[in-house]
Amino acid sequence: FYSGEIKKCTIIPGDGIGPEISAAVQKIFAAANVPIEWESVDVTPVKGPDGKFGIPQAAIDSVNRNKIGLKGPLMTPVGKGHRSLNLALRKEFNLYANVRPCRSLEGYKTLYDHVDVVTIRENTEGEYSGIEHEIVDGVVQSIKLITEDASRRVAEFAFQYTKDNGRHKVTAVHKANIMRMSDGLFLRCCREMAEKYPDVKFEEKYLDTVCLNMVQDPTQYDVLVMPNLYGDILSDMCAGLVGGLGLTPSGNIGLNGALFESVHGTAPDIAGKDLANPTALLLSAVMMLRYMNLNQYASKIENACFETIKEAKYLTGDLGGKAKCSEFTNEICEKIAASS
Amino acid sequence: FYSGEIKKCTIIPGDGIGPEISAAVQKIFAAANVPIEWESVDVTPVKGPDGKFGIPQAAIDSVNRNKIGLKGPLMTPVGKGHRSLNLALRKEFNLYANVRPCRSLEGYKTLYDHVDVVTIRENTEGEYSGIEHEIVDGVVQSIKLITEDASRRVAEFAFQYTKDNGRHKVTAVHKANIMRMSDGLFLRCCREMAEKYPDVKFEEKYLDTVCLNMVQDPTQYDVLVMPNLYGDILSDMCAGLVGGLGLTPSGNIGLNGALFESVHGTAPDIAGKDLANPTALLLSAVMMLRYMNLNQYASKIENACFETIKEAKYLTGDLGGKAKCSEFTNEICEKIAASS
Ligand SMILES: CC(C)[C@H](C(=O)O)[C@@H](O)C(=O)O
Ligand SMILES: CC(C)[C@H](C(=O)O)[C@@H](O)C(=O)O
Repeated sequence: FYSGEIKKCTIIPGDGIGPEISAAVQKIFAAANVPIEWESVDVTPVKGPDGKFGIPQAAIDSVNRNKIGLKGPLMTPVGKGHRSLNLALRKEFNLYANVRPCRSLEGYKTLYDHVDVVTIRENTEGEYSGIEHEIVDGVVQSIKLITEDASRRVAEFAFQYTKDNGRHKVTAVHKANIMRMSDGLFLRCCREMAEKYPDVKFEEKYLDTVCLNMVQDPTQYDVLVMPNLYGDILSDMCAGLVGGLGLTPSGNIGLNGALFESVHGTAPDIAGKDLANPTALLLSAVMMLRYMNLNQYASKIENACFETIKEAKYLTGDLGGKAKCSEFTNEICEKIAASS
Repeated sequence: FYSGEIKKCTIIPGDGIGPEISAAVQKIFAAANVPIEWESVDVTPVKGPDGKFGIPQAAIDSVNRNKIGLKGPLMTPVGKGHRSLNLALRKEFNLYANVRPCRSLEGYKTLYDHVDVVTIRENTEGEYSGIEHEIVDGVVQSIKLITEDASRRVAEFAFQYTKDNGRHKVTAVHKANIMRMSDGLFLRCCREMAEKYPDVKFEEKYLDTVCLNMVQDPTQYDVLVMPNLYGDILSDMCAGLVGGLGLTPSGNIGLNGALFESVHGTAPDIAGKDLANPTALLLSAVMMLRYMNLNQYASKIENACFETIKEAKYLTGDLGGKAKCSEFTNEICEKIAASS
């Protein structure tokens, strides 16, 4: 059901379990005949002419050329002065909106049923500005930077996303009772955007209140938009409700491209042992397909993945099963073949 | 079982349901013959000679004289320029540690069993510094201020609290991977304090990780210490796990006094109707008694409260019952009388 050209996608396999789960995703994509050609790149920082470490130019060029990428987990290099590579990539490509849907998986039991929320996180500024000073000995300030431009574009993204995905409500999450100017500005941008989307319900909630409500009844929320750090926290919390970071996808969307990634760690203890669960990366790749308007491939793969988890015959260790990564992957491939 | 002098305590009944739950607590304290004399004060801001609104001097004097207070919920005055009164009080009396224990109540069912965590929140600085600027049009910065002094004293408080209360572990919660200098300083102070308390286990965790773990298995945590905003979030989340802010106590501890308070809102919709649940304020008052070394009174009252909730014959509406505040209160008083 596809007759267009074959798109190139950058893939950053990553560290630890990254390569094996990336291979699993590629295998599943091949089984579904997804019209994608992968371009694999390494982002391990290299020393530039100025003596500073940075992402290799070839990797940057690849993402800039393809404008779409999939990324496994990355280790943060040890040692002072290295900021997280994940952050460096978000910054390099100006990926301003971080989208993390958290949905209860049928057949995978947690304390919560019917969770279906999406956190949309401002991804470029806020508490992640990186601006800090020691004013005098023992007195440090970190600067939270909120701009109207970044707030407005992520607010717009949230409302448009809600509309495009047939969802109904946007909750702006803030602490404007404390950070009146910064969160106040963020909130104002959300309010203004709400007026342009009269069909989308809009509400404002304090971050602490959302945390409290979320653990009591997550079904009261739909799409949530918020400054950077709040999104970091809430997205992890929501992931916890449905089974953890091994099951939840993530997309970083920019003006000029998008990078989809699993947000779990590199799990060095099980790396190379064919024990990892590729679900988070696979569902991130499914998000990527939808972003590329390859919806039928997306649904086919997603269904096969959900079915496999629901049947619970081939579950990896983290899900309480005994299957290898390759067995889980093969089962998904077989379901895809059977459905074609 | 008490032969000392009668202590004076300031009580700030507060707004909305504040007066009725405060009266309930006073009634229960009388039933238990607690050797306390209440001094009731009003903290509604008044206009000073400089034209600015502030806490009335009589209220400030009362707390400074008694060095101990109990506080119901306060409305934040509407209008620009009014900061939260709750915050003003914390600041005025330099109440540097905010302690919020969250424990599963026997007989009150939530999704979680056996929750027993205490969040200890730095209460004077961090993201609550109040320092913000608009640098240029549409660009705002808020300053998170972390000092060695404040970090060290709250860290010390956390370890000493853990030891004094027979608990076993302190988790420092941070985002020092992002805010390397500010959260880094906080973390360093915790590490240094950990060395002085070799009998207390110490661990460090990212805030997002704690949020994720907490909703999956709160029993892995014991005492958690953290900068101001993180405590605001985590304490509400933990309260959500055990039933919400109507059931959880809070204490603000300073060098020179302490203020115990319920953290829920003023609930204007049910105010004055004898429908409010006084549990959070009562348990805060119990914390206060322990702080004053009136442990036997504390236990007697606490047991009567827990028993009443467990029996579920006289529960207020928020707990799924039909009892009035006064009926719930009377039942607690009767249990106290019966146990004397
Ligand atoms: C790895 C870390 C720097 C990152 C963050 O704080 O944003 C992670 O927690 C995330 O949510 O992607
Ligand atoms: C009322 C509000 C200012 C306050 C805070 O943010 O600290 C509240 O949420 C709390 O936790 O005591």
